[in-house]
Amino acid sequence: MNFGSDNSSGVHPRIMQALADANEGVAGSYGRDDLTRRACEAVREMLGAPRAAVFLLGTGTGANALALAQLCPPWGRIFCHKTAHIETSESGAPAWMAGGAQLALVEGEAGRMTPDTLAARIADYPQEDEHDGKNAVLSITNATEWGTVHDTAGVAALTAVARDAGMTVHMDGARFSNAVAATGASAADLTWRAGVDALSLGGTKNGCLALEAVVFFDPDRARDFSFRRMRAGHLWSKHRFLAAQMLAWLEGDLWLTLARHANAAAVELATGLRSAGFQPMVAVEANEIFIRLPRDLIARLRTAGLRAADWPTVGDDETQGTIRLVTSWATTEGEVATLLRAL
Amino acid sequence: MNFGSDNSSGVHPRIMQALADANEGVAGSYGRDDLTRRACEAVREMLGAPRAAVFLLGTGTGANALALAQLCPPWGRIFCHKTAHIETSESGAPAWMAGGAQLALVEGEAGRMTPDTLAARIADYPQEDEHDGKNAVLSITNATEWGTVHDTAGVAALTAVARDAGMTVHMDGARFSNAVAATGASAADLTWRAGVDALSLGGTKNGCLALEAVVFFDPDRARDFSFRRMRAGHLWSKHRFLAAQMLAWLEGDLWLTLARHANAAAVELATGLRSAGFQPMVAVEANEIFIRLPRDLIARLRTAGLRAADWPTVGDDETQGTIRLVTSWATTEGEVATLLRAL
Amino acid sequence: MNFGSDNSSGVHPRIMQALADANEGVAGSYGRDDLTRRACEAVREMLGAPRAAVFLLGTGTGANALALAQLCPPWGRIFCHKTAHIETSESGAPAWMAGGAQLALVEGEAGRMTPDTLAARIADYPQEDEHDGKNAVLSITNATEWGTVHDTAGVAALTAVARDAGMTVHMDGARFSNAVAATGASAADLTWRAGVDALSLGGTKNGCLALEAVVFFDPDRARDFSFRRMRAGHLWSKHRFLAAQMLAWLEGDLWLTLARHANAAAVELATGLRSAGFQPMVAVEANEIFIRLPRDLIARLRTAGLRAADWPTVGDDETQGTIRLVTSWATTEGEVATLLRAL
Amino acid sequence: MNFGSDNSSGVHPRIMQALADANEGVAGSYGRDDLTRRACEAVREMLGAPRAAVFLLGTGTGANALALAQLCPPWGRIFCHKTAHIETSESGAPAWMAGGAQLALVEGEAGRMTPDTLAARIADYPQEDEHDGKNAVLSITNATEWGTVHDTAGVAALTAVARDAGMTVHMDGARFSNAVAATGASAADLTWRAGVDALSLGGTKNGCLALEAVVFFDPDRARDFSFRRMRAGHLWSKHRFLAAQMLAWLEGDLWLTLARHANAAAVELATGLRSAGFQPMVAVEANEIFIRLPRDLIARLRTAGLRAADWPTVGDDETQGTIRLVTSWATTEGEVATLLRAL
Repeated sequence: MNFGSDNSSGVHPRIMQALADANEGVAGSYGRDDLTRRACEAVREMLGAPRAAVFLLGTGTGANALALAQLCPPWGRIFCHKTAHIETSESGAPAWMAGGAQLALVEGEAGRMTPDTLAARIADYPQEDEHDGKNAVLSITNATEWGTVHDTAGVAALTAVARDAGMTVHMDGARFSNAVAATGASAADLTWRAGVDALSLGGTKNGCLALEAVVFFDPDRARDFSFRRMRAGHLWSKHRFLAAQMLAWLEGDLWLTLARHANAAAVELATGLRSAGFQPMVAVEANEIFIRLPRDLIARLRTAGLRAADWPTVGDDETQGTIRLVTSWATTEGEVATLLRAL
Repeated sequence: MNFGSDNSSGVHPRIMQALADANEGVAGSYGRDDLTRRACEAVREMLGAPRAAVFLLGTGTGANALALAQLCPPWGRIFCHKTAHIETSESGAPAWMAGGAQLALVEGEAGRMTPDTLAARIADYPQEDEHDGKNAVLSITNATEWGTVHDTAGVAALTAVARDAGMTVHMDGARFSNAVAATGASAADLTWRAGVDALSLGGTKNGCLALEAVVFFDPDRARDFSFRRMRAGHLWSKHRFLAAQMLAWLEGDLWLTLARHANAAAVELATGLRSAGFQPMVAVEANEIFIRLPRDLIARLRTAGLRAADWPTVGDDETQGTIRLVTSWATTEGEVATLLRAL
Repeated sequence: MNFGSDNSSGVHPRIMQALADANEGVAGSYGRDDLTRRACEAVREMLGAPRAAVFLLGTGTGANALALAQLCPPWGRIFCHKTAHIETSESGAPAWMAGGAQLALVEGEAGRMTPDTLAARIADYPQEDEHDGKNAVLSITNATEWGTVHDTAGVAALTAVARDAGMTVHMDGARFSNAVAATGASAADLTWRAGVDALSLGGTKNGCLALEAVVFFDPDRARDFSFRRMRAGHLWSKHRFLAAQMLAWLEGDLWLTLARHANAAAVELATGLRSAGFQPMVAVEANEIFIRLPRDLIARLRTAGLRAADWPTVGDDETQGTIRLVTSWATTEGEVATLLRAL
Repeated sequence: MNFGSDNSSGVHPRIMQALADANEGVAGSYGRDDLTRRACEAVREMLGAPRAAVFLLGTGTGANALALAQLCPPWGRIFCHKTAHIETSESGAPAWMAGGAQLALVEGEAGRMTPDTLAARIADYPQEDEHDGKNAVLSITNATEWGTVHDTAGVAALTAVARDAGMTVHMDGARFSNAVAATGASAADLTWRAGVDALSLGGTKNGCLALEAVVFFDPDRARDFSFRRMRAGHLWSKHRFLAAQMLAWLEGDLWLTLARHANAAAVELATGLRSAGFQPMVAVEANEIFIRLPRDLIARLRTAGLRAADWPTVGDDETQGTIRLVTSWATTEGEVATLLRAL
């Protein structure tokens, strides 16, 4: 019963096979190979963005930090939800890579900023002179850290506020697949058509071994980004093995199939939990469930083999704990059934 | 009627005279001169801290940023009030100089964190592993940006929370003189005896030309700080002219006399405002008054010669504006009287 | 005939198989898994360093830059050969990650500093005060960028100079395997027993997919390094796939077998070149050959299928070009024979 | 007999008087005052550059580092003479402020690069891809650290090489006054007309208390520089006291008079030294003399009151030492005569 993290799951067999296939023969290093050319083209096609600049790398923190460093001047401010991964879980990477930028945290229910909370936060920083720094970038996490999603209208409403404030927009798409699967929107509608300038596109949590992409929809925004990636040590020498993952992941919409699977497992699990009388804390829209359970029940489930992360609890009831259940491309019906039975 | 900023006032005559006196003859550069030795000794004496490491420089942002960079690792987090100068008015200097650190903003009335709001904010960042960054430093502004002060008990209550969380403590004392004058506490009681590790001691706003000091009460914390100051370009070559300011400022407690004058002028002005039916928004404890006035009244006062900064207004009443009135060592009774008459 | 780069070769079958094997089931993320524990232990064993702190990551630039950032203060100076990879080919990564450090370039024949050239360069920077920065780290590349190696005596002679100057020592071991294979020294003798404090141990160029390690022989030097790796985006979430590579690479001394193969192919090729009347520019000690050839011959070889990097030529003879030939674990006898025949 | 440093001299009386005069009344802070407006205008006039963007600050290292940070991308390379102040004496400030840039050191006699040595050094860094970093900026020190100067043809010859390589040009003018005085060229001819893009203009060494300016001849190059200065803590709050120095320094060409005085004193001293049989090591063109003397003579002169810096000696003769003699605006005929007599 692994609901600990989508990073605990392995690599999808088709992607593992693609790595083996890519291992034939000799290839140019540092991205000067044919697989890389094709992989970047495939990303552009998936996003409906033929002019986009696409860069592959191996980690999500690398992708977020480098994308934000590209968009944000050192004296800039990056607005994000107070539970955004870039704030809570990257040890300050984006701010550092951007040369000392600052995050400005925005309130909002269930992991989502609203246009109002965002606008209010921006208004905290009037732009009078050099003392104020610059309101520079909005970063939207989709799907959010609370397993909710922004649909196209939701994204567009936020980017409109950013645009009015003269800011650019980044999307942390570590679970972008899950957001596309959940909303039914196209990848294009959920990004550049809704006002997103740069996307961190995550493959690792959704069946890849180590694969993320940074996409700039306007290639002019990618100027010198190759230097940035290089000096952060994020340019792979045997680059074909990033490209092979991407090609296999996109081939036949495998990425979407895997995300739908993960989301469906979460829905099934949530339904079972509700039937058992346990209400998820926020709507289950992607592949994460946050739930309060009696502490002794959590302990018993763990004994029975449950892997799930403890989550900080806000309530007063000491007998209740909070856990996060994450489903993935690899979650089996058996695992869901076992957990529900154990409840 | 200059109530625009304590930075708009000039230099006290005794300090200007000290600069002229220091100009005689030849002196070692970069702090290798006798005046510097004496000035650092005088700071130690004023603070009752014979072992403290003292560094002089010319700007408050330099002092804050360098002191915090010394205390905070690049992956660290600096907790401060959401209206702290280091957050609102230094264009990200501390975070940058600390190598990409982050500020964590704490709520609290009238510019002051409370032990509870601070503890709650620290609890937002559990320290489980490398994803979390480090809760590293508490920065207390005293006097605050809202013209209130922390007394010794108030400082100690905050530093206790920080200490429990394994953090060190910085005090932004750009208006430290005003805090000492307001509380009647000794400089020692208000700093190291209350748990402060490093102090940015501000002279510029209180009668100097360009003079701040960074003080580390435990000299071991100052290791390599001279390199840090140097490479930020904050080591003056004709260093005697920093030292001369400091000696004159401390001589005969001029610093305290000037701060008392500024505070008293603020009290007098606040009293007059209340008599005229206008209530300051927060308690007037140091040398700043924040007040809502009818917009047309503000306009008339400006026409009559008032210099005062506009302040963001939070209320709904469109006919009301908010201004900040700052008194200084140079504020005259005449200015106060003129303003009160004009009301 | 691929002699373009050891990064152009693929992944050794046993390592590819290890990736597939590691894909079974669920594993803790971010290095909290059993494979990682075992892989780090295996590195310690190979190095004869049971107390060493070992960190895995995916790129050589990441390994070098992070290791150096750990050893070097922001105001420090890193001494290295003027052709060191950290100087010529990492776009400034080490200096940036170290917070703005500087490289000091050292002369020396065939890619090697000598104790004398190193000592002379250190003497360029007397350590009088904060203006001077700190002479902080020596970085030795082994094997060098010119395909030569330092034996244990050679390493020890350089580290002695560094130690005398109060500096620590880093070894860029992107081709450490080749150096061990060439010298016949043990990994321990070539590193910590010869005075090396930190090693970047490279697997990628020698049969892995993406695998490097940073090793601190004294674990006290590794303090907070996990934060450093995290915020540079170099902590893999599916960390078991780094560990699996390392275990397979070290298993049965595969790493050494592969390096010996590469070195032997270079020797064979060099012998053939000499027989054909072409003298390598420097001694062929590891897996690289630098050679001047008539430009028209180079062109004909390329037409015949040769992959080899152009190298800057220093001589005056316009009819001569310079190329670099790199052998790898995957170089075949056939490739060598074909090239020699083509000559 | 103070020949220790031009930083050991005090402030010219007219500049000290200007500070006192500027102290009258109230002035806008942070450069929003009339004196600042006039001072920047005066700099533009002196430089014959009506469109130039001018920023005042207090230290030379601040000026150099911020100017270079503005011109150089983080992955850029700054070419300078191997004895340039930015290399030897600023503890890495420029590289750090530029976000981790690197200095590339250029050879040349007597503190001067030549077009050939510069071009050769640039050729060391072919610009093929992201591994290489960018050849970004040339920094010329004028007068040099060896007391020699570049005349307009000399500057133009170097900037032409830079321009051909796609680089911009900075001039470290900590002793710019001395260079203008020595060459007889106009400030315009020696800077922008000769291809200089940004100038660090130094007042501190030449009679000011703490005053430098950063000038961008094309104001488009100054974009967001105010943020950069602010977050480095180099924006003075009582900015009028920078401006007052500048106005007095430029008024009636005081700056040039003082520099001529310093240069003349050096010439007189050098002439006397030669008469006494001691030959300066390099041509005495500005206000510095480097000279080898018997060590016992140096000791005797020190006993007699000489202040002069020891300089690293290169020769083999252990009985000879090297000292640097610096003259300044404040050097008296008596000091020169006393020293020559003592010889």
